[in-house]
Amino acid sequence: MSDFTLSCPAPILSEERILLAHGGGGRLMHQLLERVFLPAFRDPALEERHDGAALEINGVRLAFTTDSYVVRPLFFPGGNIGDLAVNGTVNDLAMCGARPLYLSAGFILEEGLAVETLRRVTDSMRAAAERAGVRLVTGDTKVVDQGHGDGIYINTAGIGVIEAPWEISPRRVEPGDAVLVSGDLGAHGVAILSVREGLEFEAPIPSDTAPLWPPVAALLAAGIEVHCLRDLTRGGLASALNEIAQARGLLISLEEAAIPVSEPVKGACEILGLDPLYVANEGRFVAFVPQSQAARALEVLRSVPVSAGAVQVGSVLEENTAAVVLRSRVGGRRVVDMLSGEQLPRIC
Amino acid sequence: MSDFTLSCPAPILSEERILLAHGGGGRLMHQLLERVFLPAFRDPALEERHDGAALEINGVRLAFTTDSYVVRPLFFPGGNIGDLAVNGTVNDLAMCGARPLYLSAGFILEEGLAVETLRRVTDSMRAAAERAGVRLVTGDTKVVDQGHGDGIYINTAGIGVIEAPWEISPRRVEPGDAVLVSGDLGAHGVAILSVREGLEFEAPIPSDTAPLWPPVAALLAAGIEVHCLRDLTRGGLASALNEIAQARGLLISLEEAAIPVSEPVKGACEILGLDPLYVANEGRFVAFVPQSQAARALEVLRSVPVSAGAVQVGSVLEENTAAVVLRSRVGGRRVVDMLSGEQLPRIC
Repeated sequence: MSDFTLSCPAPILSEERILLAHGGGGRLMHQLLERVFLPAFRDPALEERHDGAALEINGVRLAFTTDSYVVRPLFFPGGNIGDLAVNGTVNDLAMCGARPLYLSAGFILEEGLAVETLRRVTDSMRAAAERAGVRLVTGDTKVVDQGHGDGIYINTAGIGVIEAPWEISPRRVEPGDAVLVSGDLGAHGVAILSVREGLEFEAPIPSDTAPLWPPVAALLAAGIEVHCLRDLTRGGLASALNEIAQARGLLISLEEAAIPVSEPVKGACEILGLDPLYVANEGRFVAFVPQSQAARALEVLRSVPVSAGAVQVGSVLEENTAAVVLRSRVGGRRVVDMLSGEQLPRIC
Repeated sequence: MSDFTLSCPAPILSEERILLAHGGGGRLMHQLLERVFLPAFRDPALEERHDGAALEINGVRLAFTTDSYVVRPLFFPGGNIGDLAVNGTVNDLAMCGARPLYLSAGFILEEGLAVETLRRVTDSMRAAAERAGVRLVTGDTKVVDQGHGDGIYINTAGIGVIEAPWEISPRRVEPGDAVLVSGDLGAHGVAILSVREGLEFEAPIPSDTAPLWPPVAALLAAGIEVHCLRDLTRGGLASALNEIAQARGLLISLEEAAIPVSEPVKGACEILGLDPLYVANEGRFVAFVPQSQAARALEVLRSVPVSAGAVQVGSVLEENTAAVVLRSRVGGRRVVDMLSGEQLPRIC
């Protein structure tokens, strides 16, 4: 150590305590991943930095994924923590090109929670599981003392069968790929914040929470050579694209005019001071496909209700520059960086 | 409703709010399961009431399970929340007769947690995963605001390949089965409580947390016709046996003199006012095997270090009486009931 550390500092976290931003899907979360979790667990599946792990067990190709849900408030326009916990994990499987089959559910309940609230949440989970075609097959419940939880936290893990005949992964993205998004952005984040801040808009903006396997299945069935898929949750489109740009050292260019944001969400974001590029979605994804198949892919996506608003928003330009740039309506270019944390904590 | 409800009350929970006891592995937890979770999710795999779900995917037989860990304190003699989270889920897979293969890990961190604490926990998880021969392949991290967590909560879910050639399940238990336990009881609960209460015993009592696949694999390799396995976590031996007795309508008889409890644990339980029959273990299990194979099964178990202290503690007597009875040293019999909750909250 001694002098050596002066010129070559050890990779310690800039913050020695956990901040809310460490859970926000941005730069601090990636630091935590790179400096604590990846070195501790050192597993090639984790290093893929995908939404789930691709495993092969006795010749069967499976995807396996997990997410905990700590959204506040528990109920919001268009959904609640229960359907969010089902759809979120179903979508991580779909992003691996896997048909979602089975979910587990782990509940951490806070002492004092109304049983009726729990029942409303489990009812939503059942309905969401039915809609997504998955079975909830195993579970666990823990109770923590009042003041050490927030009503209900839910973890779901999921297993799916990989149906994509080729690998769908960030490392398949290449220059020339078209960048497609499956619909308008920002509704989930705005739905949460409107309740949290007690704001009322002219029309309530419901969360976009929905299962995303149907559009992925349609792309695969149509023979579209999908390179990579990612759902646009914590950190929104900007964070998802930055992750992929950095993982592969690619320059991704976006056209501001092409990015779909509904008028109500646009208005709400202006009032709330949010950039829709960074706002979380729970029923939207980005797909990287060869430019030659982009038109056909959009046609396929638009034939499925949840992705009826699919559009191309940009392209992958070149290798050796890890960045996301946005070409504005007036022709200027700016770098779309990764935020430190999230604009909104506890969004999912 | 009206008069009818007098003679046939609707199945509502006796408590309309969640109590710590709802997470304790006892009667209230079973009520919650029966009245909220099972009706909501209605899945045959859940209704098996096993430690995990047995699934078949394209001809491969898998076990899938999940547990959240909210133990307090995070560190205790013999372990911490990290190795507990690995061993606990590994053991649920083993109890399904499955070789544990893959784990997911979902972290709920409380704002303000020292990163160094997290690092100690993840290091323990890696060591435990290596010891148990499993890979930690996918994960997730959420951060909750200070005062809405307790440092670290961890959920792990696990996938294993079922190697038992026959079904291992509560419904296979039958009159004439021998009831074996794999070693002395109560160390985990006493280890936790000693730290929590600031008690010091002459010799510190370490938790028994350990992976249990090796003894299960040994039983299967020796051709022992294992009917049912259950690890003796929340609620201890008494709760595990009551669950099985009730699921199958069986009378299980225990010999008090045969139940292994170490002298230090016995002494600590006397001081703390605990009954070792109800104290949680994290490295002990009960096995139901035909009486004709009990001697051989014990020989096999004793050949594996973690189950070197295996003994027969009782037998399954008859059908049509769902109860567990204990024959005391002086010949009396008493019913060993299920507690409402746990003697100790947040034990795992």
